[in-house]
Amino acid sequence: MKFLPDYGDVERAYSLIAPMVHRTPVLTSTSINIITGGNIFFKCENLQKVGAFKFRGASNAVFSLSEEDARKGVATHSSGNHAAALALAARMRGIPAHIVMPSSSPEIKKRAVAGYGGIITLCEPTLQARESTLNEVVRQTGATIIHPYDNFFVIAGQGTAAKELIEDAGPFDLIISPVGGGGLLSGTAIAAKHLSPSCRVIAAEPAGADDAYRSFIAHKIIPSEHPKTIADGLLTSLGQRNFSIISELVDDIVTVSEEKIIEAMRLVWERMKIIIEPSSAVPLGAILEGKIKVEGFKTGIILSGGNLDLGKLPF
Amino acid sequence: MKFLPDYGDVERAYSLIAPMVHRTPVLTSTSINIITGGNIFFKCENLQKVGAFKFRGASNAVFSLSEEDARKGVATHSSGNHAAALALAARMRGIPAHIVMPSSSPEIKKRAVAGYGGIITLCEPTLQARESTLNEVVRQTGATIIHPYDNFFVIAGQGTAAKELIEDAGPFDLIISPVGGGGLLSGTAIAAKHLSPSCRVIAAEPAGADDAYRSFIAHKIIPSEHPKTIADGLLTSLGQRNFSIISELVDDIVTVSEEKIIEAMRLVWERMKIIIEPSSAVPLGAILEGKIKVEGFKTGIILSGGNLDLGKLPF
Repeated sequence: MKFLPDYGDVERAYSLIAPMVHRTPVLTSTSINIITGGNIFFKCENLQKVGAFKFRGASNAVFSLSEEDARKGVATHSSGNHAAALALAARMRGIPAHIVMPSSSPEIKKRAVAGYGGIITLCEPTLQARESTLNEVVRQTGATIIHPYDNFFVIAGQGTAAKELIEDAGPFDLIISPVGGGGLLSGTAIAAKHLSPSCRVIAAEPAGADDAYRSFIAHKIIPSEHPKTIADGLLTSLGQRNFSIISELVDDIVTVSEEKIIEAMRLVWERMKIIIEPSSAVPLGAILEGKIKVEGFKTGIILSGGNLDLGKLPF
Repeated sequence: MKFLPDYGDVERAYSLIAPMVHRTPVLTSTSINIITGGNIFFKCENLQKVGAFKFRGASNAVFSLSEEDARKGVATHSSGNHAAALALAARMRGIPAHIVMPSSSPEIKKRAVAGYGGIITLCEPTLQARESTLNEVVRQTGATIIHPYDNFFVIAGQGTAAKELIEDAGPFDLIISPVGGGGLLSGTAIAAKHLSPSCRVIAAEPAGADDAYRSFIAHKIIPSEHPKTIADGLLTSLGQRNFSIISELVDDIVTVSEEKIIEAMRLVWERMKIIIEPSSAVPLGAILEGKIKVEGFKTGIILSGGNLDLGKLPF
């Protein structure tokens, strides 16, 4: 078994999951092009099943399991989009998904996971409790742990979003992805560098959770410590596989202020009439902040997801 | 000149405006299908230019003018999506758009029209003042009045949304459109009955602005009096051309409570991650209220627009 996926693995993922995922639309906005001076194509993974790109990686991981492994189910600890995505993918294969969640998780997130048929085990809200509880679940069930981003099949699955984007609107001069654990970014880089070889791939990260930026500069993984950002999908530290791929294929990582993340989020809501969560707004925020120049470059942006509490908008 | 457009006019409209309009995506939602028991395809005109289907009709009207007429510009009185759509279409043809707006219009709407290059003339907030001011503008400029819905080219243009919907996902058993002045509904009925002849076309209208429902039953136009609904795009009375087409081609009109309009709006925001204005939510509201049965019918819904004040959500 290879440690790192390559483009062939993205293609295999695509063949496996295409019947299950939405081929999400690629949208453009004249007014955002005027504001930014760019020619930007938005790949709308906020319109993906479970409202996030995470369903691509989760479904590839679930459907890549052998029959024997699959029967024992899958497991993860997560309270975010990956948990919901894994639960839905498992339900589609007819196998159990064990989701370890901190007892402090908002009710709305517990309901989302339960709604997709996930079997929830609550634990204390510490990383140690989450890991020990997950290990106990796996010991009892024999389920396969599907890591939210540091997983061969998850990375290959996430790469299918960029593959579709380039097929539908490419080639590109530049593709921008947000980065948290690095699952979307590493998959995007694999697909983009293969299908559109002269395309630069740049990641945008909240300044308040800049471990990927610091790791990229330092050429080693520097874990996230006390991250603080409204972009709650990007709080995690880079995974080992993700860091290896990013180091090799990504051209640059830039950081973005909270102010510009919120401004970009509002701009997309108002001008494009689509709901994106703050994490999705980080690439456009980087452009608005002048961290990435798009004038003269045909640019793709992956909008990663649209899950947020409508009662708690930042504007 | 014919009084009423037919499907040939919808096709001509499509040839004319296709390079200018977005071919908006058709989206589906597994969870909304589970909730409603249906198999529903949403045509996302909220993602159209200016955030509403109105740009289709306005651009068809503007680009159908002779060179000589076009030079003198176009004019309308409106404070809604039609005004913005007409301004943008006129700018694209390089001609003036004179928009008469009541002085009481919200700043946000004035800015939207001005932002698309519309020339605004303010007037007293009465229908009489709007009409006399519009006539004065036309007397001075020779501009052609483009009515927001009771206009041959506007109706033909609005029909292109259903044409695309059926081409991309049809044929259908049922197509549902909201109804206000009847521009979208009449264009939709012309396209649907031609391209998918066995398809029923049903209109959904707020119970608080039910003039189309009452007119349909009475077989004559009954003007809207003191309408009151959150669906502010549907306050107007049926036009003459629209009523003729609707009487001939539409199978039924149903009314929907405010409560179900808001519930449907929230459901689309939360499950589909797209922003729709209340008027767009009326068809799904009718389904949630049990006024239209979708079980067993392949159903298309036209989501008419996505323009609303994000600071004033009803949930």
